[in-house]
Amino acid sequence: MFDSANLDHRIGKPEYQREERKLREALLHTQYDLKENGTFPVLILIAGVEGAGKGETVNLLNGWMDPRHIHTHAFPRLSDKERERPLMWRYWRALPPKGSIGIFFGAWHTEPIVLRVQGVLSRRELGNYVGEIQRLEKMLSDEGVMLVKFWFHLSKDQQKKRLKALEKNPKTAWRVTDLEWKYFKRYDKFVDVCEPFLRETSTGEAPWIVVPGMDPRYRSLTVGRHLLTAMRARLDARRAKTVPPKGQPLLPPADDLNVLRALRLDQEMTRKQYESELDKWQGRLNLLTRDKRYKRLSVVAAFEGNDAAGKGGAIRRITGALDARLYQNVSVAAPTQEERDQPYLWRFWRHVPRRGHMTIFDRTWYGRVLVERVEKFCAESDWMRAYSEINDFEQQLADHNVVLVKFWLAIDKDEQYKRFKAREHVSFKRFKITAEDWRNRKKWNDYELAVAEMVDRTSTASAPWTLVEANNKYYARIKVLRTLAFAIEAGLRRIPA
Amino acid sequence: MFDSANLDHRIGKPEYQREERKLREALLHTQYDLKENGTFPVLILIAGVEGAGKGETVNLLNGWMDPRHIHTHAFPRLSDKERERPLMWRYWRALPPKGSIGIFFGAWHTEPIVLRVQGVLSRRELGNYVGEIQRLEKMLSDEGVMLVKFWFHLSKDQQKKRLKALEKNPKTAWRVTDLEWKYFKRYDKFVDVCEPFLRETSTGEAPWIVVPGMDPRYRSLTVGRHLLTAMRARLDARRAKTVPPKGQPLLPPADDLNVLRALRLDQEMTRKQYESELDKWQGRLNLLTRDKRYKRLSVVAAFEGNDAAGKGGAIRRITGALDARLYQNVSVAAPTQEERDQPYLWRFWRHVPRRGHMTIFDRTWYGRVLVERVEKFCAESDWMRAYSEINDFEQQLADHNVVLVKFWLAIDKDEQYKRFKAREHVSFKRFKITAEDWRNRKKWNDYELAVAEMVDRTSTASAPWTLVEANNKYYARIKVLRTLAFAIEAGLRRIPA
Repeated sequence: MFDSANLDHRIGKPEYQREERKLREALLHTQYDLKENGTFPVLILIAGVEGAGKGETVNLLNGWMDPRHIHTHAFPRLSDKERERPLMWRYWRALPPKGSIGIFFGAWHTEPIVLRVQGVLSRRELGNYVGEIQRLEKMLSDEGVMLVKFWFHLSKDQQKKRLKALEKNPKTAWRVTDLEWKYFKRYDKFVDVCEPFLRETSTGEAPWIVVPGMDPRYRSLTVGRHLLTAMRARLDARRAKTVPPKGQPLLPPADDLNVLRALRLDQEMTRKQYESELDKWQGRLNLLTRDKRYKRLSVVAAFEGNDAAGKGGAIRRITGALDARLYQNVSVAAPTQEERDQPYLWRFWRHVPRRGHMTIFDRTWYGRVLVERVEKFCAESDWMRAYSEINDFEQQLADHNVVLVKFWLAIDKDEQYKRFKAREHVSFKRFKITAEDWRNRKKWNDYELAVAEMVDRTSTASAPWTLVEANNKYYARIKVLRTLAFAIEAGLRRIPA
Repeated sequence: MFDSANLDHRIGKPEYQREERKLREALLHTQYDLKENGTFPVLILIAGVEGAGKGETVNLLNGWMDPRHIHTHAFPRLSDKERERPLMWRYWRALPPKGSIGIFFGAWHTEPIVLRVQGVLSRRELGNYVGEIQRLEKMLSDEGVMLVKFWFHLSKDQQKKRLKALEKNPKTAWRVTDLEWKYFKRYDKFVDVCEPFLRETSTGEAPWIVVPGMDPRYRSLTVGRHLLTAMRARLDARRAKTVPPKGQPLLPPADDLNVLRALRLDQEMTRKQYESELDKWQGRLNLLTRDKRYKRLSVVAAFEGNDAAGKGGAIRRITGALDARLYQNVSVAAPTQEERDQPYLWRFWRHVPRRGHMTIFDRTWYGRVLVERVEKFCAESDWMRAYSEINDFEQQLADHNVVLVKFWLAIDKDEQYKRFKAREHVSFKRFKITAEDWRNRKKWNDYELAVAEMVDRTSTASAPWTLVEANNKYYARIKVLRTLAFAIEAGLRRIPA
């Protein structure tokens, strides 16, 4: 990977000045083209060895282009609010929206590499990170993000010369401490770790570009030209219609049976039973959130279900038991423009709760494989790949001690009809029933298939679906409360007191 | 993953008979359509729990369709010649060619799952297998193979009922031994391993289809319909032109320097020196191949280089030192029709040597990123992804104790001109020079860039490129012999005596 970069590449000053002028002009022009016509964001990763010109390049790119439309992020030590979320949260928050350029000075690869060089991670553990990074970057590419990955390199010899030169010059001698020389001693180990890493995370859509870092002029032209060529190619290709690759069609079961039809939707519970159960479970839930260990986990409750199945009512029975400062209600409707300018899961990542907090989603990221699938709002290949993207997302929550409960509230068609009609007749409920609800109802069977498929493909040991028989609202609410309480209890047990 | 499959799906006999007739007709018709018009192969994976109808389904598919165009492979214990090659070799050999259907009864997932259930593999180790399988299946999809993956499932209850029923019937009681009940005890563990495995290896292009295995009629219709729908969709889509996704353009260095230009191509060696060195290194090489430990490794020597750089001459100096029974010379030219009908790397996999043997490739799998790239024989996205596919391939060789040496024989343009002219003037060498050689020469710079890029992206610790300065043939041949001998010595040292 570093064979070429180990050579002493150089550009003379006159050539540089000539080329730089042309390059800046073209980059600025292309940046505005991206801003006005670009249907994708550009994300530049800046990585590599110490002293190879990473910081200078970040400044240069901001100087060459219009910095108002460049989002530059460095990722120093984790802040409190970052430590309390899954590792990827900070990167999701920093993603550039469509039409703009983001620069990540260090990114998801930084920590695993450093930990591996220090010997904290085994080769196998690094291998698992590589898999995660491959999936993350594939997802970003599939979602339209243009990833441009620069790796700045110095050969061992160049590194040594650079440190010596800095030491010699009284103005820069302070920059070379024992620490710098200690890093230098690790040079070989560092390269041994990085080389295979770069190879394994280089793909056709997002290859690593290794930049020889010694000569600033060479380095700058290399970065500028790569960025320009990549952006130009993508912008010019935008009119070429790409047919998304077809996934394999998924078929309904050969009989009429599925996980929803296997449910007994009518369950017994009288109002009196309900009231005593409600007291009991709300009390228990409240106590759980006051447990000392609760401050060391987070909770996500995700609600999906048929229209009029009682999601709102069930959610209110949860929040009724909680301290209002410790939960957030997120009602998911059509995405905002800001959300549309980001990869699909962005708008859910932003609401991932910090420690000791709960987020309750009224409709969720499963919209992709439910409404967007059935109404054909996205291409088949988009929702087909969403299953594994969602599983990855939820795995990251689980790995970070986030308790995730997912409810599907199920009613039958007759019950829905009754509830729709009742809503139309009660003035203060009329806002809850629209023409769209009646339209959706006509696609009952399509939705049912999508739900069964969703449960099959996304019910995991760490994030199982709970199917809630909801023809009887009392029964449904208590099942929701009980399931949530049990899940939190299990989560607390996993935390040492 | 198994939520739906745990239900008691059933199809009645009259319905089955009606549906089966239609299905068979359509399948047979589609199989012939594939044979006559299909530009892709279909590969069906049959996997899942014991007793869920895997074998019956394989027979059924062969009965429903024309078995002459179905390649069915089971993969029992490794044979000698399989054990002596990397694990994936047996699967590569069995791949169906374009236009035909292959059935793998068990495949690359079988062993890792079994070893994990037995506790031989850790969760992390299984994770690494998952990564390998993901990359393999992505490569197959990218190469046009249509993967249809069926997982046959029985719930624990169904499994138990089935064993009891077999035991009860005197005709089948013999099929249930202590071993069967021992497997049954591992049911939960098995499902715990398989569920996440299936999820992680399900992709949009190649999702696992979970088939409830209890009711033979239900199971058969499910498999048949899925297969039919998937094949039909792909065949019908064949006229929709898919624009391959663009990779990021790779740029040449900003200066004139690259790994080839950094070489000093003129090296000193007189004929006399050469003859004594040749004796020495050929002798050493011969001795190495007689080492006891040599029987426990394999050797692959890969030759690339400029036209007329002396590949053939160097190869002859190697083979001159070897027992003719222990090596194979593979000269790579345009692919045969049989080879064109397979994924790109197939024609190299087939020549991977067994233990104690050496394969010498005169031109190699790097054609994809050299001639095919420069002459635009394949799409940009194809050669861009080839770097990582090649790295995966070579990693598998390395993991299996295959010593791999890769030579690029480099001469400069003047030297090539001299050699071309000389060939034209010597009658017995005239066959070695064609109009194509002169045409290639015009693209000297394009090839040079492609070579530099190739070295950067595929020189690895376990399979480094050796650049051979070859203006002086004597020097080049000795460097080749010496490098090969050193590599074999290093390989032997890794083997306990």
